[in-house]
Amino acid sequence: MNEERRQEWLANRRNYKSSRTAIDLFEKIISGDKIALSCGITLLESSLKKDQDLAKELLNLCLPYSGKSFRIGITGVPGVGKSSFIEEFGKLICEKGNKLAVLAIDPSSEKTGGSILGDKTRMQYLSVLENVFIRPSAAGKTLGGVARKTRETILLCEASGFNYIFIETVGVGQSEIMVHSMVDFFLLLLLTGAGDELQGIKRGIMEMADGLIITKADGENVKRAQYTSREVKNAIHLFPPTENGWIPEVLTCSSLNKIGLVEIYDLLDKFYRHTQLNGSFDFKRQNQEKYWMHETLKDLLFDGITHAKGLKELIQKMEKVVSQKEFSSFEAAQLIYSEYIKQLVNAKD
Amino acid sequence: MNEERRQEWLANRRNYKSSRTAIDLFEKIISGDKIALSCGITLLESSLKKDQDLAKELLNLCLPYSGKSFRIGITGVPGVGKSSFIEEFGKLICEKGNKLAVLAIDPSSEKTGGSILGDKTRMQYLSVLENVFIRPSAAGKTLGGVARKTRETILLCEASGFNYIFIETVGVGQSEIMVHSMVDFFLLLLLTGAGDELQGIKRGIMEMADGLIITKADGENVKRAQYTSREVKNAIHLFPPTENGWIPEVLTCSSLNKIGLVEIYDLLDKFYRHTQLNGSFDFKRQNQEKYWMHETLKDLLFDGITHAKGLKELIQKMEKVVSQKEFSSFEAAQLIYSEYIKQLVNAKD
Repeated sequence: MNEERRQEWLANRRNYKSSRTAIDLFEKIISGDKIALSCGITLLESSLKKDQDLAKELLNLCLPYSGKSFRIGITGVPGVGKSSFIEEFGKLICEKGNKLAVLAIDPSSEKTGGSILGDKTRMQYLSVLENVFIRPSAAGKTLGGVARKTRETILLCEASGFNYIFIETVGVGQSEIMVHSMVDFFLLLLLTGAGDELQGIKRGIMEMADGLIITKADGENVKRAQYTSREVKNAIHLFPPTENGWIPEVLTCSSLNKIGLVEIYDLLDKFYRHTQLNGSFDFKRQNQEKYWMHETLKDLLFDGITHAKGLKELIQKMEKVVSQKEFSSFEAAQLIYSEYIKQLVNAKD
Repeated sequence: MNEERRQEWLANRRNYKSSRTAIDLFEKIISGDKIALSCGITLLESSLKKDQDLAKELLNLCLPYSGKSFRIGITGVPGVGKSSFIEEFGKLICEKGNKLAVLAIDPSSEKTGGSILGDKTRMQYLSVLENVFIRPSAAGKTLGGVARKTRETILLCEASGFNYIFIETVGVGQSEIMVHSMVDFFLLLLLTGAGDELQGIKRGIMEMADGLIITKADGENVKRAQYTSREVKNAIHLFPPTENGWIPEVLTCSSLNKIGLVEIYDLLDKFYRHTQLNGSFDFKRQNQEKYWMHETLKDLLFDGITHAKGLKELIQKMEKVVSQKEFSSFEAAQLIYSEYIKQLVNAKD
């Protein structure tokens, strides 16, 4: 978004801050008010106790209105043309009468300064569209924290009427596996001349994709893109079948010349119908909910232990000790665990 | 092993049971006594408190003597010929003057009755060799429990002088990812006429392999195997590069005609030299130790919560509730967590 709009938003947010209640925000969000939505997400991301209480209330109000969207994960290495693709493909989705929210997961943003959706000049045409909501990467020190905030953001966006949700990530870290567990469809963008240029994509990612798109199929690159497409088709035909019976497809596209985008839209549509018909769409979502409940529980427990007094030092010390084989990893873990329980039980004194 | 030997072992174990101490067992284990080794592993697997204490002592004694082996994960769907391969390849490894331990991970064994290494008639020639130790799948209800026991078993085998460790698993579940995180080299066995026959192999497994072997390359199958080999080579050339700079290789073999086995032995050798030279061998092992420390800690914490009074019911109830979208997965997790901490803190009363 441009600077004037940002200033306008900030002013609006300040107004909300003084008088907002969960119900007030909730009503504005389900009426499609983007400023209220943005404000709600800020609440989710806040580390203040009173904001968190409000956020919890808001989430509970929104929960029954959530879920009615098509959640699409989009990944690819830096340079594959993710922004241009999302810009052009997003416009197409809106032209078809949909409402689109674009979120990002980038746990590395603290280190790199955040290239994902952080650049104001990117997606300039998409961001001004009425039916589009763009939100930069959720802040957070742990992947678990980022995941929680992103998933909660999805729920708010859905309650606000967005029926297409993009979740953008760079294909280099643990984040794809996380994104994969919160989306319905996983789209992998690939460069032409695959092989060398796949550098950086994490292993195990290709096999997770429901659709693979060769980008930048324009100009002199068209033939190379078609060749790469055939190569990738040959490769994925050897992959084990998916659980939902879907056969991943390989397409080429050019964001520059707006070629191949309708085909990708149709592919998503076909996938949606396929998984709705055989019940795997809802089944996957239910499993994802359970998965996230367990993951969150593990995170909370692990957070508890790393924040307990003196245990952080103990954990670091034990990491060193197991590397040097003085302790087995299991003994080290047991030692940390019993120290933690002892502290908890003695906390009353 | 055959029935007479099993009886002999059982008798020996009974003798050990009455007089064994950790030091006694340890000394026998490092001298290469296979009965003592087997007895030590039984201790690891025991759920009795006094056995566990003894096992812990034993592990600590063995720890400085562990680590000096090449740990190889072997996976493939049922029917790919894992047993025949391990039998023939194992014999070759012994002929080259090595000592080989064959372990198995099969978390599903309780349901299916355990096909992995459970069948006494399998590997009958390998099991009678002096330099071979075969141990069926560790029992355990959780994957975490099985993982812990398997990793501890590896340490004991290494202390006992086994310098090649095979860890066998079926390529259908979560177990490969676990095996991958405890081995140096990951070998995937594939059938000819790939595609249809990869049914059952879990997605993401192919990209984890350091070596891919097309089995049953004999008789009329030779040409098909070569064709499949070329196909797989084409596929994996598109995979992202590995972190250690190793390029996975594809080979064919026939366990029946003992063809292609030496090449696989050389491949392992090449990998060992490659990763030793660039330091990635030790680096990976150190990371694996840290990983397992954290995983064990998470398991212990999660175990604690599921065994806390009444919490199991609460977790099951919450799983239902999140599927029906009455609660968000995060709220449900928080509810379970606070209930747990409350119980712990009140435990003193």
